[in-house]
Amino acid sequence: MLKKKTIAIDMDGVLADIEAQALNWYERDFHVKLTKADLQGKTEMDLFPEKGIIRDFVLTKGFFLTLPVMEGAVEAVKSLSEHFEIYVVSAAMEFPLSLNEKLEWLGIHFPFISWKNIIFCGDKSIINTDYMIDDHIKNLDHFKGKTIMFHAFHNGSVTHHDRANNWNEVIALLNQV
Amino acid sequence: MLKKKTIAIDMDGVLADIEAQALNWYERDFHVKLTKADLQGKTEMDLFPEKGIIRDFVLTKGFFLTLPVMEGAVEAVKSLSEHFEIYVVSAAMEFPLSLNEKLEWLGIHFPFISWKNIIFCGDKSIINTDYMIDDHIKNLDHFKGKTIMFHAFHNGSVTHHDRANNWNEVIALLNQV
Repeated sequence: MLKKKTIAIDMDGVLADIEAQALNWYERDFHVKLTKADLQGKTEMDLFPEKGIIRDFVLTKGFFLTLPVMEGAVEAVKSLSEHFEIYVVSAAMEFPLSLNEKLEWLGIHFPFISWKNIIFCGDKSIINTDYMIDDHIKNLDHFKGKTIMFHAFHNGSVTHHDRANNWNEVIALLNQV
Repeated sequence: MLKKKTIAIDMDGVLADIEAQALNWYERDFHVKLTKADLQGKTEMDLFPEKGIIRDFVLTKGFFLTLPVMEGAVEAVKSLSEHFEIYVVSAAMEFPLSLNEKLEWLGIHFPFISWKNIIFCGDKSIINTDYMIDDHIKNLDHFKGKTIMFHAFHNGSVTHHDRANNWNEVIALLNQV
């Protein structure tokens, strides 16, 4: 049997809609409603005058457990898992609180992904798969396989990776290979 | 600057003396004193008539947090980290309780290892380093780099990986390269 090709899929910003959660919490706490469109081309400093507020959010118990699923992610990953070996690879070590919440979150929303295929790491430099889907160029730039950059407000000006604006575009890019 | 070669180092049975902990807890609960020498060539079933007792131990809160450090491990890893980029790679996902305990344990005993260099995974098949030090052949057999098999009672009859009986022998093997 031909061995399936492997894909490393990031969580925050790819499977989980961390931008939506941050905007929701910001509105809840500061009564300022920003949209994803408002984020484009901006930095965290431009957007949130309350210094460190995003870091405070991600350090709050429950932040990662209650992240909304990125639109279309469940169906797309389920479909991809028929043809690819899927690994979820999350840079979770910086926020120790997130470890159990991320694992629980995956169990709730992606129960078809085995614990054997979940990796929580610091940097992703020793991850070796055929493909990597990630929103951070620090992860994509050092990756040896084929990269797909999932759109996020912080990567809008990057042009040296194939961009997917949503999960339909991820599927389309992988259908070309 | 020449890039340092990378080593993936396992936790249980390599950095942490899980055999010692299991024997201590077994003596505490069943008043039977076994030594590491008693384990050689035996299976868990031979040694512990109480079916599933080891699984019960590892599922107990505190088991991983209180593991003794493997003799010589701290000094050896500290010394290796001068010449190699060290990654701690632990198959922690099977036991969710262990995630935070393992991270805390590393912080206590190996504070010089950055969170960026810690990986908790299911299987280790997508880990790509130059060397892997592990006691389980299921991890070593599929590894593409050079392997060092750390001695454990369950790998006593394995001959197709370089064996290190202790951390001094790990250092000796790595000095040859």
